[in-house]
Amino acid sequence: MATINDNYLKLKAGYLFPEIARRVNTFAEANPEAQIIKLGIGDVTEPLPQACRVAMLKAVEEMGDRATFKGYGPEQGYPWLREKIASEDFQSRGCEVDASEIFISDGSKCDTGNILDIFGKNNKIAVTDPVYPVYVDTNVMAGHTGPANEAGEYEGLVYLPITAENNFTAEIPSQKVDLIYLCFPNNPTGATATKADLKTWVDYALANDSILLFDAAYEAYITDSELPHSIYEIEGARDCAIEFRSFSKNAGFTGTRCAFTVVPKTLTAKASDGSNVELWKLWNRRQSTKFNGVSYIIQRGAEAVYSEAGKTQIKELISFYLENAKIIREQLSAAGLEVFGGVHAPYIWVKTPAGLSSWDFFDKLLQNCHVVGTPGSGFGAAGEGYFRISAFNSRENVEEAMKRITSQFKV
Amino acid sequence: MATINDNYLKLKAGYLFPEIARRVNTFAEANPEAQIIKLGIGDVTEPLPQACRVAMLKAVEEMGDRATFKGYGPEQGYPWLREKIASEDFQSRGCEVDASEIFISDGSKCDTGNILDIFGKNNKIAVTDPVYPVYVDTNVMAGHTGPANEAGEYEGLVYLPITAENNFTAEIPSQKVDLIYLCFPNNPTGATATKADLKTWVDYALANDSILLFDAAYEAYITDSELPHSIYEIEGARDCAIEFRSFSKNAGFTGTRCAFTVVPKTLTAKASDGSNVELWKLWNRRQSTKFNGVSYIIQRGAEAVYSEAGKTQIKELISFYLENAKIIREQLSAAGLEVFGGVHAPYIWVKTPAGLSSWDFFDKLLQNCHVVGTPGSGFGAAGEGYFRISAFNSRENVEEAMKRITSQFKV
Repeated sequence: MATINDNYLKLKAGYLFPEIARRVNTFAEANPEAQIIKLGIGDVTEPLPQACRVAMLKAVEEMGDRATFKGYGPEQGYPWLREKIASEDFQSRGCEVDASEIFISDGSKCDTGNILDIFGKNNKIAVTDPVYPVYVDTNVMAGHTGPANEAGEYEGLVYLPITAENNFTAEIPSQKVDLIYLCFPNNPTGATATKADLKTWVDYALANDSILLFDAAYEAYITDSELPHSIYEIEGARDCAIEFRSFSKNAGFTGTRCAFTVVPKTLTAKASDGSNVELWKLWNRRQSTKFNGVSYIIQRGAEAVYSEAGKTQIKELISFYLENAKIIREQLSAAGLEVFGGVHAPYIWVKTPAGLSSWDFFDKLLQNCHVVGTPGSGFGAAGEGYFRISAFNSRENVEEAMKRITSQFKV
Repeated sequence: MATINDNYLKLKAGYLFPEIARRVNTFAEANPEAQIIKLGIGDVTEPLPQACRVAMLKAVEEMGDRATFKGYGPEQGYPWLREKIASEDFQSRGCEVDASEIFISDGSKCDTGNILDIFGKNNKIAVTDPVYPVYVDTNVMAGHTGPANEAGEYEGLVYLPITAENNFTAEIPSQKVDLIYLCFPNNPTGATATKADLKTWVDYALANDSILLFDAAYEAYITDSELPHSIYEIEGARDCAIEFRSFSKNAGFTGTRCAFTVVPKTLTAKASDGSNVELWKLWNRRQSTKFNGVSYIIQRGAEAVYSEAGKTQIKELISFYLENAKIIREQLSAAGLEVFGGVHAPYIWVKTPAGLSSWDFFDKLLQNCHVVGTPGSGFGAAGEGYFRISAFNSRENVEEAMKRITSQFKV
């Protein structure tokens, strides 16, 4: 008699975004004339950089010639892409990351979930609150938690609140934890971490033999040269951190799919016999066995991100979204709303006005302004009373959305 | 103190193909003048069909225009691709498979590994012997086995031998098993299953509440209209089977990456409280949470497989590889070797001559003929004394390889 993984039954009904989609659809059906502007899900809207498209067109042509056709590639990714990443994203910033430590994948969402495959079942897991829901849900699925309580918090997980009260920097936990998910620039709050902030985490991890799972998907939005783009800018991080990176938010690859994960060869964790095992070896085995590499065509597109033309085009893309973020911040502030983030991140974290709950504000914005955002409570209990607005949209839509919101929420 | 998944330490040192690569590299370094022909790994060699390339070129162009740009797609795949698959691959053969039951992915290797996420920890697992190593290794990683013995068999797994003695049809196990991996046309033996063969499996699964994990990656190579392409051609299979399909071996997508998995909505397994849970819901939740869909560009390429031009081009591609297989079969037979498979599959399963072990035959072929194949023992203990030769290569290379082999192994 085949049995299921019962842990799935602990999962709360909806992943956040399906519930948003449901409410939006209901509203749209009842109000077919409404011009809904979506600033909810963190999905890019602008065209893929030309450099990436040119590279992919060439790659497709290569697939049509026996001499240049590509079958199975290395599961870890092609060396030419891994080398560019190591050099341009890390070594150029003084980080000691080798090409062999870069694993190309089809998405950071996949990698942040799959990484749990190589860890033991009894690690104490810490997440921030609010948090990207995938970190939590994949731990529930893997059986690392008990059931959820009324607030949606799962038994066994350690939640580290990030709120205005602590300046959106998660505080070091008072208890010992083994795996810690950190995301800076942060999704959903748009907050950043300084080198000093990250150093306290690295020091904690080294002192406690913990592993930091550092999600840097939004590093391209950092505009302050003092802020770290990578955890490996912090001394000691090679001995305690795995980093996740993506081409989704810098080069607009959300529908093209390419990302990578850095696992330093110096990183170890304990086997049950007390010996230290290299995590690189385990992740390499995991990827070789359960993954078959990213499409050759797509890897060529990702490689073009590092060409001179690619770099220029990506810089323009980021500037465009950051200008959107600036407009959102300024307009909402002018309307008397309290806003955070949106300076080094494409997300603006808004305090809901007049004590409205996150979902009440969502409904109000949808019904009165025809604007869709993301309720902060969807990211965790400490997100209640906040609301995420994404800068991913056209200038026209952002300006129109702000006009509608400010006309409703005048000071 | 972070701990690792100790089950990884049970894995035998090398996945089969890295060991082959190691021996080939050693030989090539010592014999730089040797023209090595690789008929080992099951990787295609011929250009991607033009229809697929044209569709992908168009998709890349669409990504360059804001109006047609695609961001995140549905995690399950685009409806237009799922619908084509349901209609062309299943409904046209009388199988009751709905588009919503098709999950597009980046590879069958990934899916056959990931599918274990939704099952419980105490299922009794059966695999054939020889077997595609990924089925076994992913179960080891998931903690479904004990350690391996000298022969490489893992404690707790049920091995079902497929050999010449039973006409390469796995026999129904005498004990009760919960999950059963089947692959027809078979990798590595090239054997096929008739409808009657599959019916005995479906009947067994229905009687025992077991789930069949049916890998049909090679269905396109079936040339006998009486042979089933899908497990869903068998009545009752919707209540006991998941099917894995791929564009790798029909359309040459090994480096392009696209596949799909069928999970019927009628399929259930037991929760620990004894209730029946729909596996579709669990797999949908798994994919929504740990996967972000296949690249839009690649899905457009896969869709073109079902166009009139695509169908014609794929038929030509398959015929080409099957003609290679025929040449291999005939030449090796003429040389006095005993061969199996290669009629409805791109693999020829050769009995090693003169009592040579699989690896001895591998070394002999490499050193004397400069031809690379795959040792049967690499697929399991019952593969000892066999050798897999792949039909994936140019006509010229296949003919040259056969010339070299037949000159060595004259009757």
